[in-house]
Amino acid sequence: MTISPGQTLRELRERKPLVHQITNYVVMNETANATLALGALPVMAHAREEVEEMVALAAALVLNIGTLSPPWVDAMLLAGKAANIGGVPVVLDPVGAGATRYRTDTAKRILDEVDVAVLRGNQGEVATLVGVQAEVRGVESIGTGGEPADLARAAARNLDLVASVTGMVDHVSDGERVCSVANGHELLGAVSGTGCMSSAITGCFLAVKPQAALEAATEALAAFGVAGEDAARDAKGPGSFHVGLYDALAALDPATLDSRARIT
Amino acid sequence: MTISPGQTLRELRERKPLVHQITNYVVMNETANATLALGALPVMAHAREEVEEMVALAAALVLNIGTLSPPWVDAMLLAGKAANIGGVPVVLDPVGAGATRYRTDTAKRILDEVDVAVLRGNQGEVATLVGVQAEVRGVESIGTGGEPADLARAAARNLDLVASVTGMVDHVSDGERVCSVANGHELLGAVSGTGCMSSAITGCFLAVKPQAALEAATEALAAFGVAGEDAARDAKGPGSFHVGLYDALAALDPATLDSRARIT
Amino acid sequence: MTISPGQTLRELRERKPLVHQITNYVVMNETANATLALGALPVMAHAREEVEEMVALAAALVLNIGTLSPPWVDAMLLAGKAANIGGVPVVLDPVGAGATRYRTDTAKRILDEVDVAVLRGNQGEVATLVGVQAEVRGVESIGTGGEPADLARAAARNLDLVASVTGMVDHVSDGERVCSVANGHELLGAVSGTGCMSSAITGCFLAVKPQAALEAATEALAAFGVAGEDAARDAKGPGSFHVGLYDALAALDPATLDSRARIT
Repeated sequence: MTISPGQTLRELRERKPLVHQITNYVVMNETANATLALGALPVMAHAREEVEEMVALAAALVLNIGTLSPPWVDAMLLAGKAANIGGVPVVLDPVGAGATRYRTDTAKRILDEVDVAVLRGNQGEVATLVGVQAEVRGVESIGTGGEPADLARAAARNLDLVASVTGMVDHVSDGERVCSVANGHELLGAVSGTGCMSSAITGCFLAVKPQAALEAATEALAAFGVAGEDAARDAKGPGSFHVGLYDALAALDPATLDSRARIT
Repeated sequence: MTISPGQTLRELRERKPLVHQITNYVVMNETANATLALGALPVMAHAREEVEEMVALAAALVLNIGTLSPPWVDAMLLAGKAANIGGVPVVLDPVGAGATRYRTDTAKRILDEVDVAVLRGNQGEVATLVGVQAEVRGVESIGTGGEPADLARAAARNLDLVASVTGMVDHVSDGERVCSVANGHELLGAVSGTGCMSSAITGCFLAVKPQAALEAATEALAAFGVAGEDAARDAKGPGSFHVGLYDALAALDPATLDSRARIT
Repeated sequence: MTISPGQTLRELRERKPLVHQITNYVVMNETANATLALGALPVMAHAREEVEEMVALAAALVLNIGTLSPPWVDAMLLAGKAANIGGVPVVLDPVGAGATRYRTDTAKRILDEVDVAVLRGNQGEVATLVGVQAEVRGVESIGTGGEPADLARAAARNLDLVASVTGMVDHVSDGERVCSVANGHELLGAVSGTGCMSSAITGCFLAVKPQAALEAATEALAAFGVAGEDAARDAKGPGSFHVGLYDALAALDPATLDSRARIT
């Protein structure tokens, strides 16, 4: 299957897929608005009483452990298993894995019990989950020794999924191929929750092409990165950049997106 | 009682009523800031340990089931009953009713156990609660068969409250009269939580004229719609529109508001 | 130790301290982004399962009771005690103390069981905690009878900590000295969560100079106030002011900050 963020974005805006997100308190508004600005429909629901029913209505499920607690972990597992039964693709964002045992263990448990299509994290988080030495400060990746492309490939192989490792340059791998995405802007690192937004947008693209997770995850990062570049143009700092990011996501032009995507 | 959003807004800014909100995680900051920008004082409190005491200090209570779970439902019921005892008017926003049984049942349970003054929802949500066929995708109303004015009247009669059904044109009914409000802008649909904001603002207006729920609910939607029109003027997309909405709410001019309100 | 917000800000940006925040749902995104814009790293974590481990990685802990419930209170106590053992300084923001018994009792319990370095609140909240008559409407301080400088000194003495009482002019005291900070802008009162942001920023400064809580708390309020003045310059209302505040925090210039600080 070819990689065309423009074509997938066009389909996404036609279909307006529902993307069920069980995510952290810090970024809920942000990922909902990023989803909506892109052209999909977000829904946040985390009660045991409804997650299985809600995910059955959705075209993708995004799990994010940024402010986890036991009832939320239960909900993520329930929703993830229901998604698997219903053929709804699952994205996992292991926020802060490596910082505390609870986060690392929870991310591993979800990977164990749920068939995750795409793992989207920073280098430190993904390295932690494949047993590579990494430094994570809170929820920020400070660095790992190895090459991020190798890390993405190793994670994909070890965990049997598509690994989407974001950083200055992003690397997405299915264990064989590795796509790198060089779009984006340093201001993305100055706003809290942009990593979580990239996971939500990965869910949006995956909702449109669930059978092509490598392509969808790569396209999502290219589209988000291009929006970041557009938002940076008139930004005076992280506040105005953050606002401009929603404007840019909504204004993304499917006709020019492929030519602007720096995917190799 | 006459309908005058300008006059009610003027009184609201003088009195600065406290509006207690038990709402969803996605929009808490948004509804707090909308309340504050308009000129009222928001307070968010959801612990069983304090909701009855808090609502007794408030001039209105807004219940919103957008990210519900059992402890929050308990808190809503406790706060709602305490509000009823204290004569504090209650607004219910049944976010996502119709999408899952849990949401539908919870909205019905609140309507059963609490005397709700104003039910503020989209067509799909309100239709669900009066047993009319509707399609709800996540928390978005996709459409119903009937006329929204008829739906508002039927909901008001069946549920014995003021029904405030928002959409391209809003309809507010007490079961006899139906007021329509044609203010607003399509960008309101591009920002997550604007429906919730309209419920919060309904609470603000109701706090000022609790004995005239039809008028207050209608005025609230007109004021919010006019602010949306103002915010749209310089917006480049959903992000800048969202920011401009708070500026516009704060800048709403009571002297010209009545002439700009498109209420029939 | 001298007071130099510019020098402390310079060190903060070099060290990028991790500031662990257990705060309310309304402002989590806001305080995370204010922390990040200033130059520190925020992390939000509230599960009993991880707070002790997380706070051990942090350079400061900020506790905020804005939307408290029993599991969060437990987490705050656990994290606070672990912070004390590890020598991590603790900031407490007693949001809404005085409004309900639950908030007042919880703030007192934290002060009892945890060694708090800085108590950052408005006049009504702080007055409540030292037994002075005060009016608190929801989470807004409506006024107290006495002089805020006296209140800060009395709170510092009674509670054996640094009291940071914000208002039109802020007053910070260790029980002997009282520093007043006259920076800021009235638009700070028009945005929900700016008080919480000032507590988060107090935690950031305290992370850099934990042995000098009076100086750190004073510098934090001066820096935040100067950023507020900068943000107000181009603001059209509370929405654009809010956005500009992050831009202004990121743009704060250590070289000119001391000369702009109005500390006496």
